Amino acid sequence: MKVFIPGIDGYLGWSLSLYLTKRGHTVGGADLFLRREWVDEMGSQSATPIKSMDERLKAYRDNFNNDLWFKKGDFRDYDFVLECFRKFNPDAIVHLGEMPSAPYSMIDVNHCTFTQTNNLAGTLNILYAMKDACPQAHLVKLGTMGEYWTPNIDIPEGFFTIEYRGRSDTLPFPRQAGSWYHWTKVHDSNNIMFACKIWKLQSTDIMQGVVFGTRIDEMGDDERLLTRYDFDQCFGTVANRYCAEAVIGHPLTPFGKGFQRRGFLPLRDSMQCITIAIENPPKEGEYRVFNQFDEVYDVTELALKVQKAGKELGLNVEVRNLENPRKEMEEHYYNPDHEHLLNLGYKPTHNVEQELRIMLNDLIKYKKRILEKKEVLIPDIRWDGTRKKVGFLEKKERALEEAAGSK
Amino acid sequence: MKVFIPGIDGYLGWSLSLYLTKRGHTVGGADLFLRREWVDEMGSQSATPIKSMDERLKAYRDNFNNDLWFKKGDFRDYDFVLECFRKFNPDAIVHLGEMPSAPYSMIDVNHCTFTQTNNLAGTLNILYAMKDACPQAHLVKLGTMGEYWTPNIDIPEGFFTIEYRGRSDTLPFPRQAGSWYHWTKVHDSNNIMFACKIWKLQSTDIMQGVVFGTRIDEMGDDERLLTRYDFDQCFGTVANRYCAEAVIGHPLTPFGKGFQRRGFLPLRDSMQCITIAIENPPKEGEYRVFNQFDEVYDVTELALKVQKAGKELGLNVEVRNLENPRKEMEEHYYNPDHEHLLNLGYKPTHNVEQELRIMLNDLIKYKKRILEKKEVLIPDIRWDGTRKKVGFLEKKERALEEAAGSK
Repeated sequence: MKVFIPGIDGYLGWSLSLYLTKRGHTVGGADLFLRREWVDEMGSQSATPIKSMDERLKAYRDNFNNDLWFKKGDFRDYDFVLECFRKFNPDAIVHLGEMPSAPYSMIDVNHCTFTQTNNLAGTLNILYAMKDACPQAHLVKLGTMGEYWTPNIDIPEGFFTIEYRGRSDTLPFPRQAGSWYHWTKVHDSNNIMFACKIWKLQSTDIMQGVVFGTRIDEMGDDERLLTRYDFDQCFGTVANRYCAEAVIGHPLTPFGKGFQRRGFLPLRDSMQCITIAIENPPKEGEYRVFNQFDEVYDVTELALKVQKAGKELGLNVEVRNLENPRKEMEEHYYNPDHEHLLNLGYKPTHNVEQELRIMLNDLIKYKKRILEKKEVLIPDIRWDGTRKKVGFLEKKERALEEAAGSK
Repeated sequence: MKVFIPGIDGYLGWSLSLYLTKRGHTVGGADLFLRREWVDEMGSQSATPIKSMDERLKAYRDNFNNDLWFKKGDFRDYDFVLECFRKFNPDAIVHLGEMPSAPYSMIDVNHCTFTQTNNLAGTLNILYAMKDACPQAHLVKLGTMGEYWTPNIDIPEGFFTIEYRGRSDTLPFPRQAGSWYHWTKVHDSNNIMFACKIWKLQSTDIMQGVVFGTRIDEMGDDERLLTRYDFDQCFGTVANRYCAEAVIGHPLTPFGKGFQRRGFLPLRDSMQCITIAIENPPKEGEYRVFNQFDEVYDVTELALKVQKAGKELGLNVEVRNLENPRKEMEEHYYNPDHEHLLNLGYKPTHNVEQELRIMLNDLIKYKKRILEKKEVLIPDIRWDGTRKKVGFLEKKERALEEAAGSK
């Protein structure tokens, strides 16, 4: 199949282009390289020494004996989107071309408004360009489990049938996101659902958990094929941040009580799942939602897993909770469904410890690059709109919490 | 109280400035006059001969012996919003400064993206400027009953408590809007709910029904104080369009089967309700939702009411259904709650027929202005993205539908 990836230069996008190519698909993509600028803006860099797109394209050619279709451009520009779709004529579009960070969106009014207008406009342009150029194509859209946040009831996959005052209907599950960024994903989901309804487009809206990993097998030994790996407060996800901390001897830093439960999955599982969605498209006019993760645990359990994997590699890893810069529940019910992908054949990796060992081994090579930027590990972007580094919580406080059985 | 109105030059905004002034409040506002441009773009004009803002401000001074605080500017510009709030220091902000038309948002990708980014950015700027300049102020935000669309269950006011798989939670009621414009109101509602949560701002989010009317008593006899009255496919609401049609002898034009049920309220009730919200503010950090309408009926019942009121004034009013340019259910369950405003003292007008007679009497004076632009009465903006005038449905079809008992 012909798969087009807006945001192909990113963490998931670049990995996916390699994964799909190895599976025999034809890949194309576009990027404006904003992710590189944002990480610069955060004073950080990718732990992995990623190459420029020109070098990536050359490495791709060297490894796969084939050209990757690529265009630099802005998905806020409708004519550019339309041109991409007309020229590449995709069977599937995997939209990874959004600003993906909660803290980045919370910095100030400019970052908030940029995030919301950028993400919405890109998705709206994709929907219109699909209608105009490739109405038969399948839009795979990356949303996030964070769209649902942490309700006190089970989380279905997108929709649920409820009884209310003696009548029944199947409705979108209520969304309650926790950052301006997360809300853009909700807004997008709503817009996509509507486009599928009125124009008979088809889409898989993926509510993805927290992804972690340095590599997928498809990258082989060619370092030029590595994907980026961020560890700053904005673009490093919690598991990736922990592993970067572990290899430089920095404490692992759960926020607040550390009992926030999330769905997690390794990068290789994310690739597997997205590919399953692509290879099993919805029917005409269908809008379907997949909850995409392997296992649920809390951010302290995750830290303990990283600690254990580190110990096996001779790393002395401490866990020290930080003051929480976010506004979120630190203990809560969490029970999301995730049957749709399993029903389509998703085989979860499950072996988190092994994945963490791979990551730590990879990162040890790039320890110097993490050390150079280690000040980005302590967040300063707060949900109240101020900017001030958070402090470590006293061990005592944390111990007291645990003693109180708050988990 | 000091009340600031973004969008003060519009249909509701101008009326509200007069209503609140008569109630003893101090009013200020801002506008970029885009509504005037959009109606021009539709090839239409206000049936009422509205004055420029300069003349309005003079008329205001002449009538109320007081100056209206006004600034021309763009609510997408954060510095402008912040300056307004710093200088005026409002107790309440009634945000009417959005693009308010479903068909306008459906014209093409440019109108869609403009609508979504304009409406979102304005509201986000207001939230940040409240946080920075007047965190104690109360944001009254106009949403629409269209955010809920037409679910097969009762519609509560914003939130509902549900049981699901043996657990319970109080959650936002699922939204399913029917146009890009309506979705902006959902996106706004979500953003406002979130800002109230993280910054302890307070807001009343008004899900308003369809408003109709040419005047409120507070306009008195000074024609310079009249508010605008649109009858084109984009900016004329169904009741206002019907009345414009009635006075020029054009058939009233329900879309499709004509059994779409909506909540309706006269302009004077809209003013009463918004004022009740202002004078009974929520508590700190509270986000509350009011469903704001007087009565529910379908668009055919409404046409018959206009027909009856017209007959009393000697107008021969025909009803002829049009092909529906929208994608919507034309027969559906509809039972929204509306207790919150009644509990706070809202006294609904109820006498729709009398209101319609006032409207027709007013409009007869401006018959020539409607006749000049009568071609705008038949819509051509279709939800499938094409643009082509819709045709009248055969009487027969309509009669058959009725005979089939489909209502």
